[in-house]
Amino acid sequence: MKLGRSPKVAVLAGSKSDQAIIDDVVKTLDELGVEHEVQVISAHRNPEKLREYISGSKAKVFVAIAGLAAHLPGVVASMTVRPVIGVPVGVKLGGLDSLLSIAQMPPGVPVGTVGIDNGRNAALLAVEILGVGDSAVSERLKAMRKSWN
Amino acid sequence: MKLGRSPKVAVLAGSKSDQAIIDDVVKTLDELGVEHEVQVISAHRNPEKLREYISGSKAKVFVAIAGLAAHLPGVVASMTVRPVIGVPVGVKLGGLDSLLSIAQMPPGVPVGTVGIDNGRNAALLAVEILGVGDSAVSERLKAMRKSWN
Amino acid sequence: MKLGRSPKVAVLAGSKSDQAIIDDVVKTLDELGVEHEVQVISAHRNPEKLREYISGSKAKVFVAIAGLAAHLPGVVASMTVRPVIGVPVGVKLGGLDSLLSIAQMPPGVPVGTVGIDNGRNAALLAVEILGVGDSAVSERLKAMRKSWN
Amino acid sequence: MKLGRSPKVAVLAGSKSDQAIIDDVVKTLDELGVEHEVQVISAHRNPEKLREYISGSKAKVFVAIAGLAAHLPGVVASMTVRPVIGVPVGVKLGGLDSLLSIAQMPPGVPVGTVGIDNGRNAALLAVEILGVGDSAVSERLKAMRKSWN
Amino acid sequence: MKLGRSPKVAVLAGSKSDQAIIDDVVKTLDELGVEHEVQVISAHRNPEKLREYISGSKAKVFVAIAGLAAHLPGVVASMTVRPVIGVPVGVKLGGLDSLLSIAQMPPGVPVGTVGIDNGRNAALLAVEILGVGDSAVSERLKAMRKSWN
Amino acid sequence: MKLGRSPKVAVLAGSKSDQAIIDDVVKTLDELGVEHEVQVISAHRNPEKLREYISGSKAKVFVAIAGLAAHLPGVVASMTVRPVIGVPVGVKLGGLDSLLSIAQMPPGVPVGTVGIDNGRNAALLAVEILGVGDSAVSERLKAMRKSWN
Amino acid sequence: MKLGRSPKVAVLAGSKSDQAIIDDVVKTLDELGVEHEVQVISAHRNPEKLREYISGSKAKVFVAIAGLAAHLPGVVASMTVRPVIGVPVGVKLGGLDSLLSIAQMPPGVPVGTVGIDNGRNAALLAVEILGVGDSAVSERLKAMRKSWN
Amino acid sequence: MKLGRSPKVAVLAGSKSDQAIIDDVVKTLDELGVEHEVQVISAHRNPEKLREYISGSKAKVFVAIAGLAAHLPGVVASMTVRPVIGVPVGVKLGGLDSLLSIAQMPPGVPVGTVGIDNGRNAALLAVEILGVGDSAVSERLKAMRKSWN
Repeated sequence: MKLGRSPKVAVLAGSKSDQAIIDDVVKTLDELGVEHEVQVISAHRNPEKLREYISGSKAKVFVAIAGLAAHLPGVVASMTVRPVIGVPVGVKLGGLDSLLSIAQMPPGVPVGTVGIDNGRNAALLAVEILGVGDSAVSERLKAMRKSWN
Repeated sequence: MKLGRSPKVAVLAGSKSDQAIIDDVVKTLDELGVEHEVQVISAHRNPEKLREYISGSKAKVFVAIAGLAAHLPGVVASMTVRPVIGVPVGVKLGGLDSLLSIAQMPPGVPVGTVGIDNGRNAALLAVEILGVGDSAVSERLKAMRKSWN
Repeated sequence: MKLGRSPKVAVLAGSKSDQAIIDDVVKTLDELGVEHEVQVISAHRNPEKLREYISGSKAKVFVAIAGLAAHLPGVVASMTVRPVIGVPVGVKLGGLDSLLSIAQMPPGVPVGTVGIDNGRNAALLAVEILGVGDSAVSERLKAMRKSWN
Repeated sequence: MKLGRSPKVAVLAGSKSDQAIIDDVVKTLDELGVEHEVQVISAHRNPEKLREYISGSKAKVFVAIAGLAAHLPGVVASMTVRPVIGVPVGVKLGGLDSLLSIAQMPPGVPVGTVGIDNGRNAALLAVEILGVGDSAVSERLKAMRKSWN
Repeated sequence: MKLGRSPKVAVLAGSKSDQAIIDDVVKTLDELGVEHEVQVISAHRNPEKLREYISGSKAKVFVAIAGLAAHLPGVVASMTVRPVIGVPVGVKLGGLDSLLSIAQMPPGVPVGTVGIDNGRNAALLAVEILGVGDSAVSERLKAMRKSWN
Repeated sequence: MKLGRSPKVAVLAGSKSDQAIIDDVVKTLDELGVEHEVQVISAHRNPEKLREYISGSKAKVFVAIAGLAAHLPGVVASMTVRPVIGVPVGVKLGGLDSLLSIAQMPPGVPVGTVGIDNGRNAALLAVEILGVGDSAVSERLKAMRKSWN
Repeated sequence: MKLGRSPKVAVLAGSKSDQAIIDDVVKTLDELGVEHEVQVISAHRNPEKLREYISGSKAKVFVAIAGLAAHLPGVVASMTVRPVIGVPVGVKLGGLDSLLSIAQMPPGVPVGTVGIDNGRNAALLAVEILGVGDSAVSERLKAMRKSWN
Repeated sequence: MKLGRSPKVAVLAGSKSDQAIIDDVVKTLDELGVEHEVQVISAHRNPEKLREYISGSKAKVFVAIAGLAAHLPGVVASMTVRPVIGVPVGVKLGGLDSLLSIAQMPPGVPVGTVGIDNGRNAALLAVEILGVGDSAVSERLKAMRKSWN
């Protein structure tokens, strides 16, 4: 987390057992120089804490990581009009449960879902979103892509 | 809904499109003479309204009906220590999405899930729960079962 | 098991191979001070023994643990009007088989299903059910939840 | 049903809604001249009636038809050492639930499962089983197969 | 489509048979006053046309709608660093094929996936993304949410 | 294999990699004193050898073990009117592919499917079938069941 | 079927109920001027007839259409070293059963599987295969593709 | 790779992590004496490089290996009228995601899909395709099959 600045991306996870995915998100955001902060808050065990965190957050984009009946991304999305990116974690059933629990949000409250355990893509999508209004950020993404060839 | 008494069972649904399932729950509760009330509140579109409703409710048991990424039962369960019964509704994928979104709750916050579209079993499970402390209710369930033979 | 008292929760498993899940249920019931007893009886290999056990039991709530074509919870539910909580165990197909075999009970005989291998939630749901008629039990659940924040 | 003789095949269904599948089984047994009888008994709603029926039956083979958490074939199999053929019925999830609930029986108590809604194959398998000890029956099956070319 | 301005959102579909989903996206974008344009281009049948369209587009966000082996969103994402939102369409297998074909993108090239046939959420997520840099847009989303209570 | 007698049960497997399942079948047949023989023949790699084997076999019951697109049981069933028991092996997708490839046989040519990797149940079902015409065999099965209590 | 010439493509189906898919294959082959012949032969009900047909055929490519436990393509592939294209038909479970029964062939005997009910792609793949050795055929495919733009 | 000749089969993979599958394909092609070349190019990370490679290739058949949202085979197929064989790799969900992403191509652009991780069958299907116009190649396949008996 870059201190002294308002973080652009808030990275939330439902459980400490999601640490490896958190690390993938953070590593990619760091690589692209995007300020972020990380919080582990369960949508089910800490609903009040989550509500307070979201209502006080200045983040532009939320990344929410969760396994099983992965409600965290949807609950965050119900509390903000900022874009929410959901990362399903494969705990049981290979992650099919969390993928469906995140992707199949009802009309009205969207979550942008990335692949199972795919923290890197969540970070990249967050950066793409920030790049819509910040061409310097977009240019860093373009440079990364060029480096692949 | 029986008026003038505090309802024993609160029946919640995420969407008006779940009316047929609501009706199955209500019909069975009426058949067994159990007071109840019905509310349609989306966990995602009306999170504050839901929170207020649950915190003010005197219901002994909650039945929560939802389709797709069916978060309603889990969100209710995060707000109460009363038993919550979840009814997955088959909107897409035959209801596999809602079944997993309800059943696969993380350790700490349980939901008792019944079958897809199975409002009748949700009502019967609610009545069984009330019967634990009220033998008259249990006797009505036993009588119903005897009538099947 | 607390001796000298009628157990409030009967914990049944279909096979000795379910011991880890049994342990999770028992540990949580102990943590919340709820009397219980454990029996390993297969619905398929010991149907008579199961029938005798259920018909003689004074338990208020049953927790039934089973894998594969997990009939134990449903067979118990067919023999009692006490609430039955089913725990699917992941033996094959990640537990999808046992989840469906438990959750998809036909109208008339409900089982409240918790997540795959989720013995802790089965115990908590059993305690919530007992708490409907016993506010001291409910208070212990509320205290547990407060400790999470 | 052929009267005045002990039926060779007992055809059981869990619900009257399975009538179309019952009809397919019966039509094929009639076509091959095999005595049979039909009973609609729910494993969950009428467990005692089922137990009495099975313990008194002289049938050589059982065909058990059930949907959802289709426990009927397995429960019958737990009560007899006669071969039990299970027919999963597609009520929800295209019948995947009933297929798994029937096929995934634990070691010790087998059920021979045929395809979803495939009453005809259940009947033919029953006749093949009777043909093991009755070459006249086998010959009728061979004649049927020859007629396909 | 609002003429005379560069569209903010490009709405792409793989086939004319996706028209109902296109309409849901467009209706929601219109409701929130967001400029957009619609193109039907198959990633497989018109790969060159798609490449030309994407390389020439000034859109800030892409919504890509596709069924079956739904490659359109991923192919678009491989050609731009703008955020791409994928909408799986249920043509076969209830849409499970298209959901997986869109959500399971490999690390490096993200797509934000919404629910099966859920054009409305794709549009809302696109508007949320535009709202990151345009508070007037965000305010319209907040107003919409308030109107739900 | 008991020599000097025509084997009652032919145990076939599609691949040497199925040896553990073959062993489960054989062990159970030995336990119950039923003559058998084992052959490893692929339905796809050795179709002629399979045809010769089946047409020359005097077996009363066939057990066919196969993984992946598990055609062996169905191909055997197309060549005989003896009962064929199929054992799906979990090689990929947890065995869902082989379960469906065996169970979903078209009307006319039945296979009795047991659970994934469940060689023991295949053997027991074979013995139950032989017991229809041989009460000594049935008595051994009854004795085995009594020993479980 | 073009008469007086040896057909290049043999189109086989397991059942007359597959006629709509047969028609899609034939229409596309006609459109591209490729000689073909159609046969309805069940791998399970007519195994000898199938064997005779395949051993006598001069076809360069086989298209095999089948639903349920769709063994036809694999059985054909076991009898020839010509390329075999399998078309899964959606009869139950949306066609997932037939897709897996065709695609998951064991190493040694390949089938090239196309999408569920996708007769058109089977025909196009057959034509692409013929085009490897016949540039006039390839040119017709290229012309078709150009017509899409 | 045989040098100094135009390769008959181009073997493409989306990621270096697919090396074991690449090896299976190459080993089988070598065994049958078929010239080939291998390229690792991601459809998503290197779309331009892929386009250049395909447009310049003289290969008669393409084998494309990919996991997750496995777009590589379909993207290759959109760029050539040569036959494309897709190999789904099991990375998540046992490979169900990649199987569906490859097999469910829309009408017009076919891919011939083989089983999950089944590089050997992809190679054999490629050789069968080459054998249509080259009887020496077909004879080698026939000899291989004879060696299995």
